[in-house]
Amino acid sequence: MMLLDQKQAGFADAFRALVEGRREETADVRAVVAEIIAAVRAEGDAAVLRFTERFDRLKLAAGGLRFSAQELAAARAACSPAALDALGLAAERIRAFHERQLPQDDAYVDARGVTLGLRWRPIDAVGLYVPGGTAAYPSSVLMNAIPARVAGVQRLVMVVPTPDGAVNPLVLAAAGIAGVDEIYRIGGAQAVAALAYGTAAIAPVDKIVGPGNAYVAEAKRQVFGRVGIDMIAGPSEVVVVAEPVADPAWIAADLLSQAEHDEKAQAILITDDRIFAERVAAAVEAQLAALERGSIARASWQAHGAIIVVNRLDEADRLVDALAPEHLELIGPRAEALAATIRHAGAIFMGAFTPEVIGDYVGGPNHVLPTSRTARFASGLAVYDFLKRTTLLGCDPASFRALAPAAAVLARAEGLEAHALAVERRLGGEG
Amino acid sequence: MMLLDQKQAGFADAFRALVEGRREETADVRAVVAEIIAAVRAEGDAAVLRFTERFDRLKLAAGGLRFSAQELAAARAACSPAALDALGLAAERIRAFHERQLPQDDAYVDARGVTLGLRWRPIDAVGLYVPGGTAAYPSSVLMNAIPARVAGVQRLVMVVPTPDGAVNPLVLAAAGIAGVDEIYRIGGAQAVAALAYGTAAIAPVDKIVGPGNAYVAEAKRQVFGRVGIDMIAGPSEVVVVAEPVADPAWIAADLLSQAEHDEKAQAILITDDRIFAERVAAAVEAQLAALERGSIARASWQAHGAIIVVNRLDEADRLVDALAPEHLELIGPRAEALAATIRHAGAIFMGAFTPEVIGDYVGGPNHVLPTSRTARFASGLAVYDFLKRTTLLGCDPASFRALAPAAAVLARAEGLEAHALAVERRLGGEG
Repeated sequence: MMLLDQKQAGFADAFRALVEGRREETADVRAVVAEIIAAVRAEGDAAVLRFTERFDRLKLAAGGLRFSAQELAAARAACSPAALDALGLAAERIRAFHERQLPQDDAYVDARGVTLGLRWRPIDAVGLYVPGGTAAYPSSVLMNAIPARVAGVQRLVMVVPTPDGAVNPLVLAAAGIAGVDEIYRIGGAQAVAALAYGTAAIAPVDKIVGPGNAYVAEAKRQVFGRVGIDMIAGPSEVVVVAEPVADPAWIAADLLSQAEHDEKAQAILITDDRIFAERVAAAVEAQLAALERGSIARASWQAHGAIIVVNRLDEADRLVDALAPEHLELIGPRAEALAATIRHAGAIFMGAFTPEVIGDYVGGPNHVLPTSRTARFASGLAVYDFLKRTTLLGCDPASFRALAPAAAVLARAEGLEAHALAVERRLGGEG
Repeated sequence: MMLLDQKQAGFADAFRALVEGRREETADVRAVVAEIIAAVRAEGDAAVLRFTERFDRLKLAAGGLRFSAQELAAARAACSPAALDALGLAAERIRAFHERQLPQDDAYVDARGVTLGLRWRPIDAVGLYVPGGTAAYPSSVLMNAIPARVAGVQRLVMVVPTPDGAVNPLVLAAAGIAGVDEIYRIGGAQAVAALAYGTAAIAPVDKIVGPGNAYVAEAKRQVFGRVGIDMIAGPSEVVVVAEPVADPAWIAADLLSQAEHDEKAQAILITDDRIFAERVAAAVEAQLAALERGSIARASWQAHGAIIVVNRLDEADRLVDALAPEHLELIGPRAEALAATIRHAGAIFMGAFTPEVIGDYVGGPNHVLPTSRTARFASGLAVYDFLKRTTLLGCDPASFRALAPAAAVLARAEGLEAHALAVERRLGGEG
């Protein structure tokens, strides 16, 4: 953990190093992924089955790629009622929050008599990648699938690898709660290729979303253009801005809930009280000792954690905007004022009783958020990601004549004679 | 030009070939671009100046990278009043259409007492790439810059290469009309790198938009993640669905206005009348003979043009959705009904007096649109591309207690103990 105190020399440089520090791995898996995609395009299901046997140690027939209704019912029956109830509450709250995002179409006639419009339509078919193994998160299934369903996507397809045949029943139950239409037990670049290009068993989709390892991320990059993709997610991060009114143990717990994700995760506390900072640091050490995922959390906290002591908390907004964090907790009397001036954050959690974890599961807003300072230009997943827009334009003869001369002048200025002629013929000049 | 008649055998296969036919070039410029970006990151302005001398045959000093106010005033003075007036009309109409897109923030307290919100904020700084040479289109400057300005972007930076020092004054005038803040006479991958990473002379931006050649497109791909980028545009296309009420010469002119862009451009007519189809084909041939850009238009029409004769125009919506065209003209009595059912098109132009060219310049909607069937999942440029969202969540002790148990159950189900502890400590279980 790095302690930065604004009162000490070198603060600006140390803070800049923290902002510029990159945490991504850049394993070069490009060639391997390109080969897998080419094989799936050429051979279809045969290639998908071969890679699934090789990477997941699972021998399937094409007819066995898809989970059956019976398998899904059995998975749900294997889940605890408490977990299913919790997923139900989460789904209800996520749906309610995202339904408010549905945009209105626009249609109007302007003062020159031109008919104008902008309308939103859902993407036809969406593929959702869900990681298998330890990173199989039912909450992520809800967060990715529900906004698609709210947008009106007709066909929602999920892929999830099942190494050695193992699958998390709660992941399948979450897919059922979210209304996923088809689920295939495949993963990796081969699953992304199957979704993008289609096989005999799996019809192609128009967009692929969801997190994955370096192979999945690279496969999404390579099929981008053929289909749409969501952001490529980097390691997760939280910034907590807390005044000394908060319980240091709570703040430490919030920092550690971020740090336990991944050794590359980053947890940062910003406060204006040095004593409080030291109490939080001590609480982190105390809690680390007993954590199940303590070795991951400790590695993250040691390498990427930071506590920043500022002279005046009012100025924390500048630091937060420079960090542009994925998650931002604001705790203390100045929280409201800071929330109003901060420009760059994926999601803001207000007050001591809103730990990020509430938002990870049952808050309602999406937990798929822009990482690694991309909140400067990117947003969390939303209904908008599953809609696309079409604009409409209509001129009658009178409004056409009002606009046509300017269009012809600009077309000729750009050296596009055929453009000019398309309007001039209608003006009668060259009909 | 390919003539497909639904009455003839093999129609389905021929149509599928048309839909699947790819027109992109895939020049592999990856390594060259990676070198240029690395050099700009390492050496800053020195590398930018060196590449500008090499590729644009232009020797500059760092102080001369930016156009001065005097140069911009002189450029504007060199433009014809008619062209400036036309740009002014275009800018006014683009601004009016895009201002209606500004979304509303959301903020509410739900039935459980949880405070929720979603707010939109502009991206701080945006870079706009403008191609030099023959593809220097002042209309594109307006279409890219005005939505950014409407969104509230604080700093709007333009780069435009000036090979041998040559610049199109109308491009600079358009930048002035659109409110661009800084203009640099650089292009290629070096300009993209300078915008993404910054140099001593050019502060970095958060997102880069605008069209460019294969080097520029690849550079945008490589800096993606460090900054945001817009879609990578492919060759342009139009689909015209016309009933025989229309003047064949007008339809031919519209097809050719698309074909003159680029030998890889694509113009397609769909009609239900074989005689009309042949009249349009003849009109295309007649008009081609006299066009300034006739050789480009002819190459496009021969290689990629198509006329599709369908049995019933009511079914054209299926064909259009399969093509998912960038531009779609609907002409004839069935236009309204077709517009209502078509799902995938970047922009629709309604009626015989709305040639696409009106929309290219002065209609109001954006002319930066999804190409190559990406309208299935992508949208034209809009104010949304220059905004990003932050969600807000706030619980008081009562609403926290209502949600916390479900969050803890899900955290433990996902094996994330520190997540569970962050809520359980606040519930008093482990405080």
